[in-house]
Amino acid sequence: MIIIGEKINTSLPGIKEIIESRDTPALLELATCQAAAGAGFIDVNVGTGVGSSLDEIFSMEWAVQVIQGQVDTPLCIDSADPAVLEAGLKARNGKPSLINSTKAEEKNLKQVVSLASDYQSPLVGLAMDETGIPATVEERVRACEKIASACDKHGVPLENVYFDPLVLPVSTDVKQGLVTLNTLGVIKEKFPAAKTAMGLSNVSYGLPGRSMLNTAFLHMAIYAGLDAAIMDPLDKRLVSAITVAEALTGKDRYCRRYTKSLRGKH
Amino acid sequence: MIIIGEKINTSLPGIKEIIESRDTPALLELATCQAAAGAGFIDVNVGTGVGSSLDEIFSMEWAVQVIQGQVDTPLCIDSADPAVLEAGLKARNGKPSLINSTKAEEKNLKQVVSLASDYQSPLVGLAMDETGIPATVEERVRACEKIASACDKHGVPLENVYFDPLVLPVSTDVKQGLVTLNTLGVIKEKFPAAKTAMGLSNVSYGLPGRSMLNTAFLHMAIYAGLDAAIMDPLDKRLVSAITVAEALTGKDRYCRRYTKSLRGKH
Repeated sequence: MIIIGEKINTSLPGIKEIIESRDTPALLELATCQAAAGAGFIDVNVGTGVGSSLDEIFSMEWAVQVIQGQVDTPLCIDSADPAVLEAGLKARNGKPSLINSTKAEEKNLKQVVSLASDYQSPLVGLAMDETGIPATVEERVRACEKIASACDKHGVPLENVYFDPLVLPVSTDVKQGLVTLNTLGVIKEKFPAAKTAMGLSNVSYGLPGRSMLNTAFLHMAIYAGLDAAIMDPLDKRLVSAITVAEALTGKDRYCRRYTKSLRGKH
Repeated sequence: MIIIGEKINTSLPGIKEIIESRDTPALLELATCQAAAGAGFIDVNVGTGVGSSLDEIFSMEWAVQVIQGQVDTPLCIDSADPAVLEAGLKARNGKPSLINSTKAEEKNLKQVVSLASDYQSPLVGLAMDETGIPATVEERVRACEKIASACDKHGVPLENVYFDPLVLPVSTDVKQGLVTLNTLGVIKEKFPAAKTAMGLSNVSYGLPGRSMLNTAFLHMAIYAGLDAAIMDPLDKRLVSAITVAEALTGKDRYCRRYTKSLRGKH
C-alpha cells in the first residue's frame, strides 16, 4: 500500500497561511514528518480559491522547490488547474511526481493526459465527469473507461494510471460505501494493469466516531483492491489498519511486517 | 448480521466441566448472557471426545432442555455426530434450531441433510470434504456445490443453507485470508438464495494482536458477503465491528443503528 500524505493541502486548517506567508520552516516540517512516517508521495495542494491562476502557479513553484530541497520523497502535484500542474512538474526537474488529477471531462482530460505523457509521469484519474460524481458503479466505471481511452491515445500506459473510485458520505446515501468498494473491484477487473487510489475520510462525513468508520472502510477497500490511500501518514490507527489488512490479504509474507509493527506493544 | 453465540462449546476452557457435572446454573448463565447480548442463535456443543456417542446424546438432551426452559433464543445444535444432532433436534420439540454441521462427505451429508429435511431446520454446510479443508477457492466451492446438490435432492431449500467457507490461519499460509474471503464472494454469486456463516478467530491463530486481526477480518468478511458470524456476542470490539461494517455496506438505513450504538460514547 502506498500512502499519499495529505497534510499539505490548503483546504486544511492553517495550511493556507503557511503558503501565503511563504513559511518555509512550517512547510518543511509538514513534508519531513510525512516522509519520516513512510509516505510514498507527499501531496502538494496550494490553491487558495482567491487570486489568479498565477498566484497558485507561484505558490506551487515555491512549495515544490522548498520541499525537494530537503526531502527525497516523490511529490503528488495536486491542482484542478492544468497550468498549476505543469508548473509543479517543471519545478520538479524530472524528479518523480504523481499528477493529481484529471476527470473524464474532455478538455481537462486532454490537457492533463498530455502532461502525463510529456513528463512521463503517473496520474490520478477521478471516476467522474463534467456533471459531477456519478451515483452508480456503472457510471463511475464509464468515466474511468474514458480516461483509459485518452491515456491510450496519448501513449500513457495503464501502469501509470491511479483510478480514484471516489467516495461520498454514507450519512447522506447509505449505498455510497458499497458503490465505492464495488467500483474499486470492477476497476481492478477491467484494468488489471492500472492502480487505484482514494481518500477515505469522506465516507464518514457527518457521523460520530469517524476514525472507527474510516479504519473499517480502509480494511474493506484494501480487500477490494486499493493500492494507494490519500491520508495522514501520522494517523497511527490508519497506518496500523493497513498493516493488519495486508497481513490478512496475502500481501505480507510470513506476516513479518505485521508482527514487527507490534514489537514492544504486546 | 446474525450472531451465533459460541460460548457453550466443550473445546473452550471450563465448559466440559459444566457439561459433565450437569451444572445447570452455570449453563443457564452462559445461555442468558449470550441471549441478552443479542445472539440470534446459541451454539450448543457438548462433545467431550471421551465416552460413547450415548454420553454426548444425553449431554445434548440435558443442555437443550435446560436452556430452552429459560431462554427463547433459537439453538444451534452442534456436533460431528448425526445421532447427537438428531437428539438435540428432538429435544427442541419443534422450536427453531440450526444444524451445525455437515461437510461434503457422502455418508455425513446424507444423514445430516435428511435431518434438515425431516426437522425442516436450516443447516450449516462446511466447504470441505472427507479429505479435509481444501487449500483453494475452487475446491471449497466444489464442496459447497455437493452440499447444495444433496439439499436439492432432499427438498431442503437453499434459503435454509448457511455455507461456511472455513478459515485457516494466515500465520501458516498468508494466502488463506483471501481464500476464505473469495470463497464467500463466489458462494454469494453462485447461490444467491443461500446464506453464509463462519467463525473468525482461526484467521489470527499463532499471531499477536489477535483481536485487531479478527476485527479487520470481520470488516472484510461482511463486505465479502458474510451473513452470520460464529463468535462471542459479549466481545464488544467484534459487535462494534459489525455495526460499523453494516453502516458502511448499506445495511443500516440512515446509519441509525450505528449512531444509536455510539450514544453516550461521544
